[in-house]
Amino acid sequence: MSNFTDNYTPELHAITIAVDAMGGDFGPEVAVPGANILHEENKDIRFIMFGDESRITPYLNKYPSLKNATRIVHTDKTIRMDEKPSAALRASKGSSMRMAIEAVETGQAHAAVSAGNTGAMMAIAKVVLRMLPGIHRPALASVFPAMEGSTVMLDLGANVLVDAETLAQFAVLGAVFAKAYKNISMPTVGLLNVGSEDMKGPDHVRAAAEILSKVELPGLYKGFVEGDDITKGTVDVVVCDGYAGNIALKTGEGVGKMTGHYFKEAISSDPLAILGGALAFFALKRFKRKVDPRLYNGGVFVGLGGICVKSHGGTDDLGFSSALRLAGQLARHGYTKKVADEINRLMSQDTLIS
Amino acid sequence: MSNFTDNYTPELHAITIAVDAMGGDFGPEVAVPGANILHEENKDIRFIMFGDESRITPYLNKYPSLKNATRIVHTDKTIRMDEKPSAALRASKGSSMRMAIEAVETGQAHAAVSAGNTGAMMAIAKVVLRMLPGIHRPALASVFPAMEGSTVMLDLGANVLVDAETLAQFAVLGAVFAKAYKNISMPTVGLLNVGSEDMKGPDHVRAAAEILSKVELPGLYKGFVEGDDITKGTVDVVVCDGYAGNIALKTGEGVGKMTGHYFKEAISSDPLAILGGALAFFALKRFKRKVDPRLYNGGVFVGLGGICVKSHGGTDDLGFSSALRLAGQLARHGYTKKVADEINRLMSQDTLIS
Repeated sequence: MSNFTDNYTPELHAITIAVDAMGGDFGPEVAVPGANILHEENKDIRFIMFGDESRITPYLNKYPSLKNATRIVHTDKTIRMDEKPSAALRASKGSSMRMAIEAVETGQAHAAVSAGNTGAMMAIAKVVLRMLPGIHRPALASVFPAMEGSTVMLDLGANVLVDAETLAQFAVLGAVFAKAYKNISMPTVGLLNVGSEDMKGPDHVRAAAEILSKVELPGLYKGFVEGDDITKGTVDVVVCDGYAGNIALKTGEGVGKMTGHYFKEAISSDPLAILGGALAFFALKRFKRKVDPRLYNGGVFVGLGGICVKSHGGTDDLGFSSALRLAGQLARHGYTKKVADEINRLMSQDTLIS
Repeated sequence: MSNFTDNYTPELHAITIAVDAMGGDFGPEVAVPGANILHEENKDIRFIMFGDESRITPYLNKYPSLKNATRIVHTDKTIRMDEKPSAALRASKGSSMRMAIEAVETGQAHAAVSAGNTGAMMAIAKVVLRMLPGIHRPALASVFPAMEGSTVMLDLGANVLVDAETLAQFAVLGAVFAKAYKNISMPTVGLLNVGSEDMKGPDHVRAAAEILSKVELPGLYKGFVEGDDITKGTVDVVVCDGYAGNIALKTGEGVGKMTGHYFKEAISSDPLAILGGALAFFALKRFKRKVDPRLYNGGVFVGLGGICVKSHGGTDDLGFSSALRLAGQLARHGYTKKVADEINRLMSQDTLIS
């Protein structure tokens, strides 16, 4: 069943995003308003929303213009947040998440976005979109703000500890991602470690450094970086295993939240400070926008033959719109083709990808 | 050669801290003013400063009261920041760092503090203060601010990846540390991981969880915690390997710095905001004190038969005073004896420590 409206006219230049409208803690309550935020910015983007039509439509009815740019594909089936990835994959046929990813595979959409079960999404994406030739494992990549520009970081938790070759491949995937996302020709790449000296760090990190210092990379390998280099913007791409990456990501989020908490506490503690805060209202608003983690929500599964973006499960409409925007940007920059070309080029040169 | 002043009268109840005055990027320029900050708070604390007397004395002369509470023990020898730990250890006899640690071993001081070479300090401390019976490896523990209370975290980089038994021992050491530092009888302990479900995480972390759920702990084991639980204050003690811990620590520091950077940028961007910032001056000052990383400077090598505190090498006097304060607090709470008693008790019960 479809809600394809008459004035929905897909155009060649327009980007279409397949949305799992049922994913995450809030489903369409967040997915539809989130899509509307992006729609207000860019009327060219089309959406296909997969999920329970009776739950999606009431939200969509609030935004007539978005409704015109959106098609609903109904399904009753949803993957639960707590399902094991293997079980979820087996029972995934016809689910809103799988249908959204399949829309990318069939060419109906340029990218898929879901706030659902991360493990299930990775398992389904691997089956449906398939791994790129020669790539061991997918990784989860995101873009974070830095004092200088922004930093692409991966893996954020698609894997835990990996071997040195896989870690070195993540460097390739991260560099290719940065080339497409940031539109730069020679991204700098650093390997996350506990120190910058050669002798430091666990075996798999030192062995990956050894590999990266020898092979040709679609970027410039800069050696080890440390946790604070992520926000310094020392390199375009920070590469790590999913164990270190996930812990770094969540620790950083926690520090951000704590800082905000103490700031609010301090500023609301005396009348003079409240007045000061009021005078600085617009400056504080600009500041909040700079450090708001919702504006950097969205992890891309790299290493696959299509764009698949994971949103935080607990985010709100603003956060979900960031994941949609990231998907749209990658699609617009021709990410899938650029990655495939780069991997083919590297394969023919007998490097890491074989 | 010693600068033992006439009115220096060691008392039984007073705490004496042995200071490597030559460690870190700034040596006595930071160590002496740092000691004075603590001295202003607590006149009972005595200091023995090891290092080049001709470099220490000019700084000490600025603080007559501190000078009366301080004895200088002269040595020309200093361990360089870039020396390899093994080489530094072999050549360490008579160095300011080793002499400070030896002062703890001989009972002249209750604790040693240095901002010098971390690897060298750990190697020397292991030889001089020795490992507690049954403990595999020392770990580096610190106390961080949280939204609820504070969080003891270890290992912050004394090791990289460790096996499950060693990780489980860190939980014991962390719990004992929290008991002495926070003066609580039953600290809660969490194991840092990439998710809270049993199936998640690397092998050594899951195996350590298995051990911790079975053995008796000098605290209450609460299962897995994630990066943002460090600042939430979910548990009293967060346990991890030094690879994850060091990356989490530095990432958190980086996010804190970036937040401050963007805040300053925003608040100085328009006249109204500058006025607002001026009105909120005292509130902002209180806020800064809450999140200032210098106030949480100081890592303790746990698992040793004495108190040995490592200060950040690049910190200033305020930061160094925090490391000294931490050493003083642990000494005052009888940390060394409490740890030894706890380890003996656990050994006799045939648990993790054997």
